[in-house]
Amino acid sequence: MPVFLSTRDADFEDQFTALLGAKREDSPDVDHIVAEIIADVRARGDAALLDYTAKFDRMVLSADQLAFTAEEIDALVAQVSDEERAALEVAAARIRAYHERQMPEDQRWVDDSGAELGWRWTPVSAAGLYVPGGLASYPSSVLMNAIPAKVAGVGRLAITVPTPDGIANPLVLLAARLAGVDEIYRIGGAQAVAALAYGTETVRPVDKITGPGNAFVAAAKRRVFGKVGIDMIAGPSEILVIADKDNDADWIALDLLSQAEHDESAQSILITDSEAFASDVVAAVEKRLETLERRAIAGASWRDFGAVVLVEDMDQAAALSDRIAPEHLELCVADPDALSEKITHAGAIFLGAWTPEAIGDYVGGPNHVLPTARSARFSSGLSVMDFVKRTTLAKMTPAALRAIGPSAEVLAKSESLEAHGLSVTARLQKLND
Amino acid sequence: MPVFLSTRDADFEDQFTALLGAKREDSPDVDHIVAEIIADVRARGDAALLDYTAKFDRMVLSADQLAFTAEEIDALVAQVSDEERAALEVAAARIRAYHERQMPEDQRWVDDSGAELGWRWTPVSAAGLYVPGGLASYPSSVLMNAIPAKVAGVGRLAITVPTPDGIANPLVLLAARLAGVDEIYRIGGAQAVAALAYGTETVRPVDKITGPGNAFVAAAKRRVFGKVGIDMIAGPSEILVIADKDNDADWIALDLLSQAEHDESAQSILITDSEAFASDVVAAVEKRLETLERRAIAGASWRDFGAVVLVEDMDQAAALSDRIAPEHLELCVADPDALSEKITHAGAIFLGAWTPEAIGDYVGGPNHVLPTARSARFSSGLSVMDFVKRTTLAKMTPAALRAIGPSAEVLAKSESLEAHGLSVTARLQKLND
Repeated sequence: MPVFLSTRDADFEDQFTALLGAKREDSPDVDHIVAEIIADVRARGDAALLDYTAKFDRMVLSADQLAFTAEEIDALVAQVSDEERAALEVAAARIRAYHERQMPEDQRWVDDSGAELGWRWTPVSAAGLYVPGGLASYPSSVLMNAIPAKVAGVGRLAITVPTPDGIANPLVLLAARLAGVDEIYRIGGAQAVAALAYGTETVRPVDKITGPGNAFVAAAKRRVFGKVGIDMIAGPSEILVIADKDNDADWIALDLLSQAEHDESAQSILITDSEAFASDVVAAVEKRLETLERRAIAGASWRDFGAVVLVEDMDQAAALSDRIAPEHLELCVADPDALSEKITHAGAIFLGAWTPEAIGDYVGGPNHVLPTARSARFSSGLSVMDFVKRTTLAKMTPAALRAIGPSAEVLAKSESLEAHGLSVTARLQKLND
Repeated sequence: MPVFLSTRDADFEDQFTALLGAKREDSPDVDHIVAEIIADVRARGDAALLDYTAKFDRMVLSADQLAFTAEEIDALVAQVSDEERAALEVAAARIRAYHERQMPEDQRWVDDSGAELGWRWTPVSAAGLYVPGGLASYPSSVLMNAIPAKVAGVGRLAITVPTPDGIANPLVLLAARLAGVDEIYRIGGAQAVAALAYGTETVRPVDKITGPGNAFVAAAKRRVFGKVGIDMIAGPSEILVIADKDNDADWIALDLLSQAEHDESAQSILITDSEAFASDVVAAVEKRLETLERRAIAGASWRDFGAVVLVEDMDQAAALSDRIAPEHLELCVADPDALSEKITHAGAIFLGAWTPEAIGDYVGGPNHVLPTARSARFSSGLSVMDFVKRTTLAKMTPAALRAIGPSAEVLAKSESLEAHGLSVTARLQKLND
């Protein structure tokens, strides 16, 4: 049974604070192992990659087998059913259409002083996407990471995906092809991250690495950060559903379970203003858990981290939601737009009962890589913005320098940076000659 | 003497690679000390802050003295000369005007399926700005960090600034006031970062921490990342000047020195297509170094990390610039706009000889917090975007769900996420009832 809280309880504040602070994940300390692997890949390149792949993925490869050939991709992609291919194409098209609107615009203007100012956006030249192998090898994640990169204009996009015992997921390869990925390597773990960051004889280095992974991959991304850019290190997934009594309890139960089935550390929370509806949802969850394929995982998540919070009204619900700052937020109420206006911190909002969160995982269009663990207070989901960077521009005229240069001279002097001031003074003197 | 390279040299590629790879900074490993300080502040709150302030800043305070009072700020601000106040006001107004154009726009649209999609930007609720004490206590940096936060709409903006032996910089306090900072604490070091991230009895926690600092501050920011957002950890400053022979060698020398005077680890590079001009600049640098106030620092930087690169034409210059990915790039050539079009990776570009980099440090308008150490390949300078976050929005109609829901069902099944699929199926069944 999940924890049950009510804002009417005298100790609600303590209970809610405990819920917010609950630690859901133990990160094993693999940092020293990862440091060794990275150093080894930097020192020995392909040879190190081949050794680790033999050891961890039980595959003896030669260097020219590190990358999938076009023929190998063709053969695997041909295994995908027409139905699955069509579904991936719908998803890719919708994700692309959404992200194309995110491309930021250059600006350039002349201000009162005559100075020309502005900025310009350019894509990252090369990006690498880590794709997990095995159970968490999600083709949808390939689309969600690769399409924004390609929309941004990334010139070279490489994927690394481990293929333990030689087993590759055809859907992952098709997703990569649909997204326009340029290179696919059958490597994984910290060694794949090291190869993307530093390069080997076969793998050319990239400038930015994104994508989910296990503790080794996360530790490797932290270590190479600075040498290359990385996306956020994601924690276990979360959903908050705010629902009034006029909902189908089974729909809400399934929405809660679709987060819970990801991971035993996932968290599903229901906030409602109806005690009867809360009971109905809890019962519906229990019923679904009897037959759900992943009932062991979903059941553990719901039991250990699930929560139901009873509120007096939806204003209370919005205030609590902002304290949770959920990764996914469903607003299953009569006027979801009005309620959403009261929400400040959330990775993604799903408006109304016809918008299950799972739509957002696949075909809605918005990205499903979203800030976890309350980081929606200060960060955003993956987007085109993660694959572009801004160069600011400034161009003075003699008149502009005459107008604003003296202020720079004063401030340089006050900061005891004489050469800063002199670089302006020398130019102003020329104007006065 | 700085290193001198020519693209005509047989070993140019090796020399240039060595220049790019040169390590300019030794980061002392203070991580275990910082971990202790953070744990102590979390455990003991204000009491820990007061102890560290007594120890490191030689100031015995009580908790109610941790924050500057309005009267204390008034008294300090009154010490600022009219000339300095006016210069700060010019800088603040120009920085504000530039950053106001960066505010991103919300979007909302209905697509072919009838689904309503979009996103919304909201400000970070509370931000903290670390301001160093002593020599590196720059009022210009207060403006550059605080104004974007306030333009973004950050509700509560706190500054921490150590005041060793009780000495505060009146210009820093005035800059904070001009920028609209809400709270100013006389604390510094890892303990200040810990207080901003976790809060104490006196210091309320924030969601994002920005600003420069020493090795302790940098290590503390790395440690609290995740609990709060942080900006990039800046390395030593750099400038690349691309100049043709039609320049005043003394201007260019001063521009190179205005980076070199920051720090012995700073790096100043000149790329030119004229050997004679290169010699003139080197001579002009030597001459200025005879009298420059900070000649010890600037001289060491120029000697150890300065470089002059002779190229055959400006296309070569642009290509080398992209490999350097400089923090600051000056284009002192006849047509700087045309040359800038050939540049992809740079934090800030200063167009033409009338635009010394120092203008950008103070009054140009663009931010002076910029990506160092080649990170302009994948990241941008500080901006309003660092203080806002995006919430994506999706709203299905029954018709939209009927159109795209089946693709989600197929993909959920292919990823073995049954509840994901069922959450769509249950709704589609209702439509078919």
